Amino acid sequence: MVKRSRITELFDIEYPIIQGGMVWCSGWRLASAVSNEGGLGLLGAGSMHPEVLREHIQKMKQATTRPWGVNVPLLYPQIEELMGIIVEEGVKIVFTSAGSPAKWTAHLKQHGITVVHVIANSRFARKCEEAGVDAIVAEGFEAGGHNGREETTTMALIPLIRKTTKLPVIAAGGIGSGAQMLAAMALGADGVQIGSLFALSEESSAHEAFKRYALASGEGDTLLQLKQLAPVRLLRNRFFEEVQKAEQGCASVEELKALLGRGRAKKGMFEGDLDEGELEIGQVAALIDELRPVAAIFTSLLADYRSARETLPLL
Amino acid sequence: MVKRSRITELFDIEYPIIQGGMVWCSGWRLASAVSNEGGLGLLGAGSMHPEVLREHIQKMKQATTRPWGVNVPLLYPQIEELMGIIVEEGVKIVFTSAGSPAKWTAHLKQHGITVVHVIANSRFARKCEEAGVDAIVAEGFEAGGHNGREETTTMALIPLIRKTTKLPVIAAGGIGSGAQMLAAMALGADGVQIGSLFALSEESSAHEAFKRYALASGEGDTLLQLKQLAPVRLLRNRFFEEVQKAEQGCASVEELKALLGRGRAKKGMFEGDLDEGELEIGQVAALIDELRPVAAIFTSLLADYRSARETLPLL
Repeated sequence: MVKRSRITELFDIEYPIIQGGMVWCSGWRLASAVSNEGGLGLLGAGSMHPEVLREHIQKMKQATTRPWGVNVPLLYPQIEELMGIIVEEGVKIVFTSAGSPAKWTAHLKQHGITVVHVIANSRFARKCEEAGVDAIVAEGFEAGGHNGREETTTMALIPLIRKTTKLPVIAAGGIGSGAQMLAAMALGADGVQIGSLFALSEESSAHEAFKRYALASGEGDTLLQLKQLAPVRLLRNRFFEEVQKAEQGCASVEELKALLGRGRAKKGMFEGDLDEGELEIGQVAALIDELRPVAAIFTSLLADYRSARETLPLL
Repeated sequence: MVKRSRITELFDIEYPIIQGGMVWCSGWRLASAVSNEGGLGLLGAGSMHPEVLREHIQKMKQATTRPWGVNVPLLYPQIEELMGIIVEEGVKIVFTSAGSPAKWTAHLKQHGITVVHVIANSRFARKCEEAGVDAIVAEGFEAGGHNGREETTTMALIPLIRKTTKLPVIAAGGIGSGAQMLAAMALGADGVQIGSLFALSEESSAHEAFKRYALASGEGDTLLQLKQLAPVRLLRNRFFEEVQKAEQGCASVEELKALLGRGRAKKGMFEGDLDEGELEIGQVAALIDELRPVAAIFTSLLADYRSARETLPLL
């Protein structure tokens, strides 16, 4: 029944479903659960010290025989060390983000690694082509966490990227159900990257309090903030209100940096400090109400996709 | 071949395609062309003096025998007079926007008029149900012109509205191609409302200079502005830059109102003043490159929808 697509071929996986390699959520438990269900699990290296990543890679090898990868934000401070571990440990798939694809793609490909880069506009799609990446994740405005300055939504972004490049495109942002997966495929995506839904799963390493708080959130409870620094979609809480007040009061970049400080995402998402922490989640959190294991999430994603596909009107 | 849907039944039209009743674009030429192609054309009363609307209604009756309607923004100053003309002239379908559906729905329905209300969040979907409207237009963040404060995109909004109400839902925002129509249907919409694509058609009453400028625009060239007054998605031009500068400089509501002044949308979109005018268009303008007649637009919308539908992967 399942048709092979460019994305399932590229990664040798069963379903074109990639789990976003999110900071503080994506350890070996989540990533291996996704891979074991036939998707592609990603370790989120952005929130791991290099030796912590090595530990997760080694646990990952025990936990699954299926393909998996590592997400690396290119602004990671000890990136040389991190990339060294990735090569040493024989990681086969790397997703890079938050930087230029020109920096690391050639190096990783020399080591036989499949490279995917995360972008939010067509200009970077062309840079990805030049750098020789194997596929692109195109992430829309509705996505949680760090985000593009153009504010282009998934509905508009995927056709724009499709028009720009022949590379396989993985849609991200606003995808938390089978119907939304189908919509992404209708827009021309070859696969989807799902963040929030997996961040709020049982296997996610995020703090239970953060998960419960995000599951209880509703429409309009996230907004893109800190546009003067690096735009990031945050869930409403005390810290969010402070940032909003500072921005409305025309705070300077320095004042915003001071307010942000360091370690806010860890505090909120990993330590469960719902007042002082930075809570990163996408708009789809408003649609997610239940903490479920990855296996149950896969079952309903696939069932919903199939039923939505069958009821699409003929015109 | 064509399946009847709740939207084609409700309006007695061939395709579930509604043309947004946009200010300065949607006179009888555009609306009748859309209705004659089997969609639902809407006169945009928001930019018409009451007697101008009467003239357009009368021309509309000459130009098509197919169903059509009128869009009325509820903050229209002489709304009593306008609604009087709508009833007198025997208009059958009214789309209301920018206000509470409780205000006029009962009155219009007493006169046998089908009423649709435009919303941007689930809270208003419930208000629409209470007011007794016949269908809802749910408009996402990517749409041109006036927009919701929650910034919920079409990908997230349609499933949220679908979950809230059993009323027929028409998706709007980010829909300018058959693939995007298909995506909206995948999200659970019963039909689509298309704005920018028709605003930039040959039959649109917008100024030629505005059309050319919007057709030449690209990704990231629109942003949601004037959030302190009423959020509106505008195309980058000199006025846009002035607003951006004022907002970044923490201008007060009074200063922004003074900067906006009156008649900016008319100046930009109808008179073609590309420097001083307010240019309202959606994110999909970046995907539209060609000025085409409505008939050609329908042909490609339907062909693209069908081919996108056929190539959706089985999972």
